[in-house]
Amino acid sequence: MTKPLSVGLAGLGTVGAGVIGMLRTNADLVAARAGRRIEVTAVSARNRDRDRGVSLDGLRWFDDPVAMASDPALDVVVEVMGGSDGPARALVEAALSAGKPVVTANKALVAVHGAALAGLAERTGTTLAFEAAVAGGIPVIKALREGLAGNRISRVAGILNGTCNYILTVMREQKRDFADVLADAQRLGYAEADPAFDIDGIDAAHKLAILAALAFGRPVAFDAVHVEGIRSVSALDIAFAAELGYRIKLLGIARQTEDGVAARVHPCMVPESAPIARVDGVFNAVVAEGDFVGRVMLEGRGAGAGPTASAVVADLVDIARDRVTPVWGAGSGDLSNAPSVSMDSHFGAYYLRLMVMDRPGVIADVTAALRDAGVSLGSMLQRGRAPGEAVPVVLVTHETRESAMRSALAHISALDSVIETPALIRIEPA
Amino acid sequence: MTKPLSVGLAGLGTVGAGVIGMLRTNADLVAARAGRRIEVTAVSARNRDRDRGVSLDGLRWFDDPVAMASDPALDVVVEVMGGSDGPARALVEAALSAGKPVVTANKALVAVHGAALAGLAERTGTTLAFEAAVAGGIPVIKALREGLAGNRISRVAGILNGTCNYILTVMREQKRDFADVLADAQRLGYAEADPAFDIDGIDAAHKLAILAALAFGRPVAFDAVHVEGIRSVSALDIAFAAELGYRIKLLGIARQTEDGVAARVHPCMVPESAPIARVDGVFNAVVAEGDFVGRVMLEGRGAGAGPTASAVVADLVDIARDRVTPVWGAGSGDLSNAPSVSMDSHFGAYYLRLMVMDRPGVIADVTAALRDAGVSLGSMLQRGRAPGEAVPVVLVTHETRESAMRSALAHISALDSVIETPALIRIEPA
Repeated sequence: MTKPLSVGLAGLGTVGAGVIGMLRTNADLVAARAGRRIEVTAVSARNRDRDRGVSLDGLRWFDDPVAMASDPALDVVVEVMGGSDGPARALVEAALSAGKPVVTANKALVAVHGAALAGLAERTGTTLAFEAAVAGGIPVIKALREGLAGNRISRVAGILNGTCNYILTVMREQKRDFADVLADAQRLGYAEADPAFDIDGIDAAHKLAILAALAFGRPVAFDAVHVEGIRSVSALDIAFAAELGYRIKLLGIARQTEDGVAARVHPCMVPESAPIARVDGVFNAVVAEGDFVGRVMLEGRGAGAGPTASAVVADLVDIARDRVTPVWGAGSGDLSNAPSVSMDSHFGAYYLRLMVMDRPGVIADVTAALRDAGVSLGSMLQRGRAPGEAVPVVLVTHETRESAMRSALAHISALDSVIETPALIRIEPA
Repeated sequence: MTKPLSVGLAGLGTVGAGVIGMLRTNADLVAARAGRRIEVTAVSARNRDRDRGVSLDGLRWFDDPVAMASDPALDVVVEVMGGSDGPARALVEAALSAGKPVVTANKALVAVHGAALAGLAERTGTTLAFEAAVAGGIPVIKALREGLAGNRISRVAGILNGTCNYILTVMREQKRDFADVLADAQRLGYAEADPAFDIDGIDAAHKLAILAALAFGRPVAFDAVHVEGIRSVSALDIAFAAELGYRIKLLGIARQTEDGVAARVHPCMVPESAPIARVDGVFNAVVAEGDFVGRVMLEGRGAGAGPTASAVVADLVDIARDRVTPVWGAGSGDLSNAPSVSMDSHFGAYYLRLMVMDRPGVIADVTAALRDAGVSLGSMLQRGRAPGEAVPVVLVTHETRESAMRSALAHISALDSVIETPALIRIEPA
């Protein structure tokens, strides 16, 4: 058997400890599949003395992770520190510059700097692998980049953030409000103390940018992703969604259109019968639609030490076997230069929920605003009567242009009888 | 760019024509992902003159597919003729012997002769790829062999035959009987004129044998798969299943147990809440459970020209990029020699539906037979009364050994008051 693959591991949080644990627990099995043993021989982290539940005996310690990049005894560097810049970026750039392959779980780094890093890897003839950066243990990078390689992908969409999906699931099942469920999720460890990255959709947008680049064969473009989070999703809207036959999910959706690539992350109403509507709790799912394969869906755990380690180790096995794929599925010369399309040109149906004073003429004003913007109404739902008080009114539009809807919304929000900010949720067909 | 990968294609049915069509339609995209063009340059089929909807102009014609194996102008052979023996086997053996890589969609060939073919490929240093043999376009071979490579897989299960899933779905949705729906499916082209391979579970068993070999890293063992089809599933049992919160699916299930590998294909009752229960119509799905990744499910179209071509082309792209994996995920010396476990030792719950004469003492006789075999009863369901006539009785057992259940069933079938053959369906937890 060939000599072991010697791994330098930067980052010893739960994921880093998970990688060490998996490589030790399944050492023989990994060696059989990789054709050689895979061993972490060096580590780097901020604090040398913390107990991480795995023994670091016999491993070389690097105070500076970047020093691993030039260490001739290391065959590959695994970066699980996180952060789009700082030491993670410095390490990855240094390793790729030195021609050393890198495996990373760092979605922010890959989404923001992935195009430049791919260029670097291409110049030095090495590879950057990032299966762990999207949807945890679900092998979705491999599926898009290799498994569906012959297809022209028209759409890729997914539930890409387990924290948001958990919160939305509990809100629906227990009819509770966002803030309340978020606080619980933080106590249970399903949400960070600072939850903004997750609940504002940024984490999902990082992952969507990566998926879109792979699916459509173009340089990763995080800045072009339209991002909305779930803070404004209310228990009331989740209840109305159920009444209309929908579930509310935070989706990342990227489409190849005639004008370019449209990529967006926002709460969506999806038909209850859609497979993705049934993916609940911390689970992630990704749907890809190809011209020959049709619709393929992959589902599994999108986070956590075990699933993330599973993805990192799969990348290491590929490297051990010399199975190399260009970072974005094709060489930089073969990537498309399709432009990004702005959210204004989005075309779809909308759910609009208002709180209005229950008095004559209100609906006439609202529907006039829609008409004036050229937005056609599909249905309307009004529950209960409370003359002189506030009642919810739900309007569902036919498919229309985002810019038209925004214009109508501005007028509607400004009406005296409309109290509270209206809730606008896009409807996404299965 | 490197010179094109020259492909010899044996078999020009819908799949063969689909491969040619996909490689032509997406030629530039495939070239970008493969790093070189991939071109079918030679073909072989039984009838040279049939119109297949794709032009064969400029392609070399082989009357004998086996002659492709030794043709120096061909880099790889694609075998989509089908059949576990005959010309398909002869061609694949000849190509592998000559050190030429083979891509096949032939599940029967891989399931029955896969161990020997892998040995051959290993000796000549070439590869046998068969993504298209299981679950059509869903990249499940790649997921198991590479994407989840670091995991110890405990269970792999799936809806592996679209014809059966279509028939069971229509039976449930339209409350119709098996024979009636099968006849419709044949008219619509969803079932073959001779449907035995599909509806008797053999096709699913071929695919399960392949999945089990990959999941557990052992030589493929088709003969060890316990196989039952769907001919005896009745509309009545589908209705009772719904009443009990289950759906009936033909599943292939393989588990790694302490005693060895248990592999079985048979109709199952699965909880309606299980993700796999929602996979309807011609769709396929595969669930794998790994020690680190947890549960991963892949879902998509399991058959048809487009999805199958997608899988074949993915394998060709891997070969064009020199991404090579041992046929069964590890070299033959690293495969496990875990024995196969017989169905007698299966342990699970059972649904038993009898048609009994509605007269005193019948239930006592039936429950006594269960007790005598050591089978513990979970619940009983009896609908309507019709003294002196036949009524259905449903019994659901607690988990018990298959051998005990078989012994109880023999006694119950022999009772005077039990008319018709009892329906026995295993209950599979989510």
